[in-house]
Amino acid sequence: MGKMIYLDNAATTKTAPEVVQAMMPYFSEYYGNPSSIYDFAGKSKEAITRGREQIAEVLGAKKEEIYFTAGGSESDNWALKAAFEAYKSKGNHIITTKIEHHAILHTCEYLEKERGAKITYLDVDENGIVKLDELEKAITPETILISVMFANNEIGTIQPIKEIGRIAKEHGILFHTDAVQAFCQVPINVDECNIDMLSSSGHKINGPKGIGFLYIRKGVKIRSFVHGGAQERKRRAGTENVPGIVGYGAAAARANASMKERTAKEIQIRDHMIQRIETEIPYVKVNGDRVKRLPNNVNVSFQFVEGESLLLMLDNYGICASSGSACTSGSLDPSHVLLAIGLPHEIAHGSLRMTLSEETTMEDVDFVIDRLKEIVEHLRNMSPLYEDFVKKHK
Amino acid sequence: MGKMIYLDNAATTKTAPEVVQAMMPYFSEYYGNPSSIYDFAGKSKEAITRGREQIAEVLGAKKEEIYFTAGGSESDNWALKAAFEAYKSKGNHIITTKIEHHAILHTCEYLEKERGAKITYLDVDENGIVKLDELEKAITPETILISVMFANNEIGTIQPIKEIGRIAKEHGILFHTDAVQAFCQVPINVDECNIDMLSSSGHKINGPKGIGFLYIRKGVKIRSFVHGGAQERKRRAGTENVPGIVGYGAAAARANASMKERTAKEIQIRDHMIQRIETEIPYVKVNGDRVKRLPNNVNVSFQFVEGESLLLMLDNYGICASSGSACTSGSLDPSHVLLAIGLPHEIAHGSLRMTLSEETTMEDVDFVIDRLKEIVEHLRNMSPLYEDFVKKHK
Repeated sequence: MGKMIYLDNAATTKTAPEVVQAMMPYFSEYYGNPSSIYDFAGKSKEAITRGREQIAEVLGAKKEEIYFTAGGSESDNWALKAAFEAYKSKGNHIITTKIEHHAILHTCEYLEKERGAKITYLDVDENGIVKLDELEKAITPETILISVMFANNEIGTIQPIKEIGRIAKEHGILFHTDAVQAFCQVPINVDECNIDMLSSSGHKINGPKGIGFLYIRKGVKIRSFVHGGAQERKRRAGTENVPGIVGYGAAAARANASMKERTAKEIQIRDHMIQRIETEIPYVKVNGDRVKRLPNNVNVSFQFVEGESLLLMLDNYGICASSGSACTSGSLDPSHVLLAIGLPHEIAHGSLRMTLSEETTMEDVDFVIDRLKEIVEHLRNMSPLYEDFVKKHK
Repeated sequence: MGKMIYLDNAATTKTAPEVVQAMMPYFSEYYGNPSSIYDFAGKSKEAITRGREQIAEVLGAKKEEIYFTAGGSESDNWALKAAFEAYKSKGNHIITTKIEHHAILHTCEYLEKERGAKITYLDVDENGIVKLDELEKAITPETILISVMFANNEIGTIQPIKEIGRIAKEHGILFHTDAVQAFCQVPINVDECNIDMLSSSGHKINGPKGIGFLYIRKGVKIRSFVHGGAQERKRRAGTENVPGIVGYGAAAARANASMKERTAKEIQIRDHMIQRIETEIPYVKVNGDRVKRLPNNVNVSFQFVEGESLLLMLDNYGICASSGSACTSGSLDPSHVLLAIGLPHEIAHGSLRMTLSEETTMEDVDFVIDRLKEIVEHLRNMSPLYEDFVKKHK
């Protein structure tokens, strides 16, 4: 096997070596507990303040509005559960979409089942975009929260967040967005988009695993999800993950600085891949919007191909890709996102997600597409469905 | 300022350099998402399995009973909130103690206020030990959970966990213990102690910050606290903190291997400190049990002294210590633990916690005690209360 080509950056990314370097002093040198009052602990406190500032800067937020968590899932759970608790006297209705990450969907199911919430799951169009008129129609006097992801983790579709924010604001409804895939991939300004809460995760932007944040706009009255000590302005208990926060801040500053150049390059490679796949491989469908799309996301379905076999054969060439989100890769169910955009089960099953990084080259992806052509052909030749189909159409 | 003497190891510990070394490959080399199916991700999956095994081994548990979290606070929140949810059809009563960590106490307050739980907060004796007869008396047919910390974070008192486990088992009640301070400091066997759930945190045992676990005995029917992806056998969503888990496992293996020798040395130093303080400084009270005590904990109250001034003056000598738990160091309230063992407010305010590590030497602590004598005398000479007292008793 030659070198590895890692095309699963939506699942997780390499922690950038300079990010690791920034973290290093906070393990064994400046290891003090930021809550302690002696001088030594001041180093830790300063470090988390700097991380908070670095992240706030990317969003046009105030540093006091950034609350560190253990990752995107915790942030999503916190936003939804605590908003429900804080605003349930006003109403019990939450609007979200059918294509959210499971951290949102399963939290909504929990709130429905255990806490008396009513949830509306909005349909999306064939590209995965929320219909704004349906959103407006779904709003009732009981609606306390709208949660729509900034960009989809499987098909990369970017939602009309500014318009959604405007609608939420007009109706006096809280607006949360899961920006785990969008943060540092597309410009985000929380004020321009009227975002009240925003979730993000460090390991998606070349930062470390195990760290995330929830942006909470000043004035949003949600309380704690993790109760205990007085950390994070008494809103998120637990000794701060100082190296994680330092790494996250460094990764955000780094990714933000390179965003324009990096994503321009990624878009070029992405569109080249899509174009080659569409022209060189028959019976293929590109999933998600062509333009309102994450710069690094390619998602295609191959008819008469089983996604898992495809992945395993790509793996033989050292190519890392996925069929949907990593979180559900243990499951045999087809992706809820692909079903929501109208794909039949058998086509949803033959889907492939390839997500690029700053390190991905044209050469890499040309190698991948060449292998992909061979593999798809090989798998189709073994498929009785394909055989039938070819016979019928000859 | 000379070298730093760090005596706040109950607040947090230095991540051991060999632990950091074990983590390093999992940032930028083997950075795959453990849920992904390609070969490369297998390295991450293996790493978390190894970490799970290393930790299970310390407790005499099965590796499938270890669920990684972001830290002790999340573990405590999970255990209590999810147990309440899972068993509330059986009853709504939880028994805990007045000297628990705030991660337990504030979670209990939340459950009382928001979820209809009834909580009994047991008193403790003057050494901080739960009275078993009062525990038995507090049990009602509605009692679904007993949560008693293994060892106290402020005064180091170790509870009669085996007896509490026996009582819980006899009554068919779940038993959770917050072992954040005890794990790898005292031998723990979950079967011998009938522990159903146990919380622990990496950064207290020379592991990294931002990682913890909840031990959940097989058969305990609690569900998720963080909802979302299928990680941790569908019980704790979120991409696994692979480097954190690796570091935690390495730290546990390391701390477990050295436990006997390390704690024997710490006990010797601890008792030497207590003895010198008691004989050389007047108007002093040692808090907590002399024998049923964490090997590395010294907690003393100095009459006519304000704890914060004491800490700041120690800090001038590079001595890091605390007045109570780090989590509440922002607060001016006296420690709830010291009040619970019967200290009057003014004495609780003059308290000092010094917690040792494997690196602490006799020489270090002799230097500290020498400085402490001077500082206490200096502060008392400035105290009008002390002046009155001396006049009265002359």
